[in-house]
Amino acid sequence: MKYPKGIIQTNKKLSTYGNRGMSLENDINSSNEYYRTHNIAVIYKKPTPITIVKVDYPSRKEAVIQEAYFNTPSTTDYNGIYKGKYIDFEAKETKQNRFPLTNIHAHQLEHIRLIIEHGGIGFLLVRFLKSNETFLLDGNKLFDFLEQTKQKSIPIEYFKQEGFFIPIKYAPRIPYLSIVEEIYFKGEAYEENT
Amino acid sequence: MKYPKGIIQTNKKLSTYGNRGMSLENDINSSNEYYRTHNIAVIYKKPTPITIVKVDYPSRKEAVIQEAYFNTPSTTDYNGIYKGKYIDFEAKETKQNRFPLTNIHAHQLEHIRLIIEHGGIGFLLVRFLKSNETFLLDGNKLFDFLEQTKQKSIPIEYFKQEGFFIPIKYAPRIPYLSIVEEIYFKGEAYEENT
Repeated sequence: MKYPKGIIQTNKKLSTYGNRGMSLENDINSSNEYYRTHNIAVIYKKPTPITIVKVDYPSRKEAVIQEAYFNTPSTTDYNGIYKGKYIDFEAKETKQNRFPLTNIHAHQLEHIRLIIEHGGIGFLLVRFLKSNETFLLDGNKLFDFLEQTKQKSIPIEYFKQEGFFIPIKYAPRIPYLSIVEEIYFKGEAYEENT
Repeated sequence: MKYPKGIIQTNKKLSTYGNRGMSLENDINSSNEYYRTHNIAVIYKKPTPITIVKVDYPSRKEAVIQEAYFNTPSTTDYNGIYKGKYIDFEAKETKQNRFPLTNIHAHQLEHIRLIIEHGGIGFLLVRFLKSNETFLLDGNKLFDFLEQTKQKSIPIEYFKQEGFFIPIKYAPRIPYLSIVEEIYFKGEAYEENT
């Protein structure tokens, strides 16, 4: 089908998304790549959990999944190792000034709780898109909030008070392991320095 | 379409697979579930990595993946935490009396090497289907073999000498963490007891 003269097809995706900032997921993935290539940590995003129903094998090496469904995740999206310690976290963006707890599944909360119980490091990374601020909130601080209140969302103020602001840099884009280092390895978050 | 009299349709899948032993993957998944429910360890199989090309959203909550492709995995299939330590492994079955190294991707070998370098525990679980024997082979023992020889497969004898046999039990089906405990926590594998 030909287009009438004078109409130029534009790449809608490019014009819509081109000038946006990178998503939190992209920032974390590129940071994890930086951490891996610099031999600082080995942390990956897990693949999306799906149930495959129908696969077509046109040849030995080529397989096309033709029917599959998304599963509810039972764990968090990211895990790996840093300085011998098991690291586990979930990352979320929100357009609101509060982080809605519906954004995180009950299974994922329980998973973070278990990880901490077994001696690992578990936390949330949350980006507030309005102000473009990203915070790390330790799992225990998250559970403190859930125990103290029946609120269905966590205000940004709680992240400012109890979490840690992560500045956006060039490389790694989102240096969350510097914060992890401060909190869990130097103990600055929980110990009073006199 | 009706079937002629006297012909009874049988469930081919059931008759073919029904009497087989559980696969190594099923054994590990059920063992990991046992370890989780008994609060011994938090270890999961990662979802299969795929690239999603086309998704149909017939309604808000229902999404059907209509076109996707399998990716080459860059990490191992299983990871998690046991007694505060990061655990990472790949599991494979073979019909031969040797484990073909083509069964494991170069990226996965490199991943195991990095995990050990960063202070984690990395190994292979290999089941030899002919004899129905399953072994744990520590990552360093695997790299020793790769350095010492140009062979494209590891003979079962190497697993018997340098690896650890894992008996099949009822629950957990494949108690690989008992072996992990012996090797990495009690140091029986590498220290001489006098």
